[in-house]
Amino acid sequence: MDLILVTLDLVGTFVFALSGALVGVRHRLDLFGVLVLSFVAANGGGVMRDALIGATPPAALQDWRYVAISIVAGLFTFWRAGTIERWRNPVQSIDAVGLGVFAVAGALKAQAFGLGPVGAMLLGMLTGIGGGMIRDVLVAQVPTVLKAELYAIAALAGAGVVVLGTALSLPVAWVAGAGIVACTGLRLFAIRRGWKLPVAQPPA
Amino acid sequence: MDLILVTLDLVGTFVFALSGALVGVRHRLDLFGVLVLSFVAANGGGVMRDALIGATPPAALQDWRYVAISIVAGLFTFWRAGTIERWRNPVQSIDAVGLGVFAVAGALKAQAFGLGPVGAMLLGMLTGIGGGMIRDVLVAQVPTVLKAELYAIAALAGAGVVVLGTALSLPVAWVAGAGIVACTGLRLFAIRRGWKLPVAQPPA
Amino acid sequence: MDLILVTLDLVGTFVFALSGALVGVRHRLDLFGVLVLSFVAANGGGVMRDALIGATPPAALQDWRYVAISIVAGLFTFWRAGTIERWRNPVQSIDAVGLGVFAVAGALKAQAFGLGPVGAMLLGMLTGIGGGMIRDVLVAQVPTVLKAELYAIAALAGAGVVVLGTALSLPVAWVAGAGIVACTGLRLFAIRRGWKLPVAQPPA
Repeated sequence: MDLILVTLDLVGTFVFALSGALVGVRHRLDLFGVLVLSFVAANGGGVMRDALIGATPPAALQDWRYVAISIVAGLFTFWRAGTIERWRNPVQSIDAVGLGVFAVAGALKAQAFGLGPVGAMLLGMLTGIGGGMIRDVLVAQVPTVLKAELYAIAALAGAGVVVLGTALSLPVAWVAGAGIVACTGLRLFAIRRGWKLPVAQPPA
Repeated sequence: MDLILVTLDLVGTFVFALSGALVGVRHRLDLFGVLVLSFVAANGGGVMRDALIGATPPAALQDWRYVAISIVAGLFTFWRAGTIERWRNPVQSIDAVGLGVFAVAGALKAQAFGLGPVGAMLLGMLTGIGGGMIRDVLVAQVPTVLKAELYAIAALAGAGVVVLGTALSLPVAWVAGAGIVACTGLRLFAIRRGWKLPVAQPPA
Repeated sequence: MDLILVTLDLVGTFVFALSGALVGVRHRLDLFGVLVLSFVAANGGGVMRDALIGATPPAALQDWRYVAISIVAGLFTFWRAGTIERWRNPVQSIDAVGLGVFAVAGALKAQAFGLGPVGAMLLGMLTGIGGGMIRDVLVAQVPTVLKAELYAIAALAGAGVVVLGTALSLPVAWVAGAGIVACTGLRLFAIRRGWKLPVAQPPA
């Protein structure tokens, strides 16, 4: 089970890094800028979570594999952005898996550091969406996750399954699996059906 | 006294959350985005302070009341933004009270975690203005507090009263009360009189 | 040696603060906004590093000299921005020294807090470039360091010399000196020769 989780985590990191690098290329950053966006999109959510729960130094700065994967994804995108754009559909599907893994792993880690149910759900969600938010802020854009698509809610659902399963003392492996399936499934459904949240209507 | 402080803190949270949600509505975010802005405007300053002084996990993630109040303020604003806009004057006055409470509570907590006078004043101010700064950055705007109105200085004054009072070993309850009055009073005066700081003139 | 390092650190803080204040003046912030940008440009990188390695509260909030230097630089720039603009060349050269000192000091501190080679290099670089990134985000601009000039790579080189020297158990004073010379020299060469990294070409 651990091997599966670690593998999914590294796959999620790679796909999130692709999303960051692609945003960097679209904004005509230089090679360094593309690598920074690649790294923060993949690891920014987890780094913020670790800083907030006091798990310092953050895991992404201690394990060279996360840095290496981000760099590989960034270099590939820098020279082959057109390829990634053509892969948009498969990348979006794998991104949904990464979202589930990040949300579940984030909620589990937050609980391990003593957070209660509400805090663990919020930090699980932050682990999933935080990297993309920093990515968008760094190119001076309103984060996509705040204005379109059903994305954060899926992360919240995955984290919620973890909190619920822990409260019921279910085995961690089953809880983690169910959380990932819930988040990823909801996200894939939302993509296929075009589900969105209502958008605010400013008063005239 | 404690009951008064907690009540003021929750009222301040609610009013700061309204300001965040209103910015979200004006930028046509979706429901999730409005709730995020509601939460960060109300709690972002305190969360940054707690991360910087090592008080992890942050209080706002451990006490469900702050999350609940932010969500209620966000939902209300999402569906009734016009009402909040019409309440602008009372909301601005209550916001001045919230600013005072946050600045004073932030300075006290920073002192309790070993910060010196300068650090405690800066972190008291950050507690008051930090949430609004994140709110504005998330919608890709220059934070209002950096370019208009006398707002941060009022927070700094409130935090300064706390630092001074502590140095003189005055009773905490009196010091806290005086700090809130100083900050809120200065802010209300500035609103009424239209006081502003000088604005930079770039060389031609 | 310590006296030299502290002096260089304070000089670097002053020059970084000038860069922040100048950006604030160009964006017509008010006096408070100019001082905030002055402070975050000078100290934001170190504050982020300290939060990430758990060195709380951050040094910049505990030592009043960093705050005082930032304020002096900010006030001077607020009233004499034209003078700073005319000094652009010397300021840019001193900035290169500051970059080297910050990157080296950051990598050393990260190592002292248990970071491995990759983490220490990244955090040394972040110490050098993080303040400028926050400065640019606060005026809703894409950070300069992500899109132009060879700047971050110089910081990375300085931090890399520290990591390498430590691995070889060389004396710290020599390692620190070599790291500063490597970073500052590379940066000055890049300015003089107009060296830049390749820029991303979005697919048509």
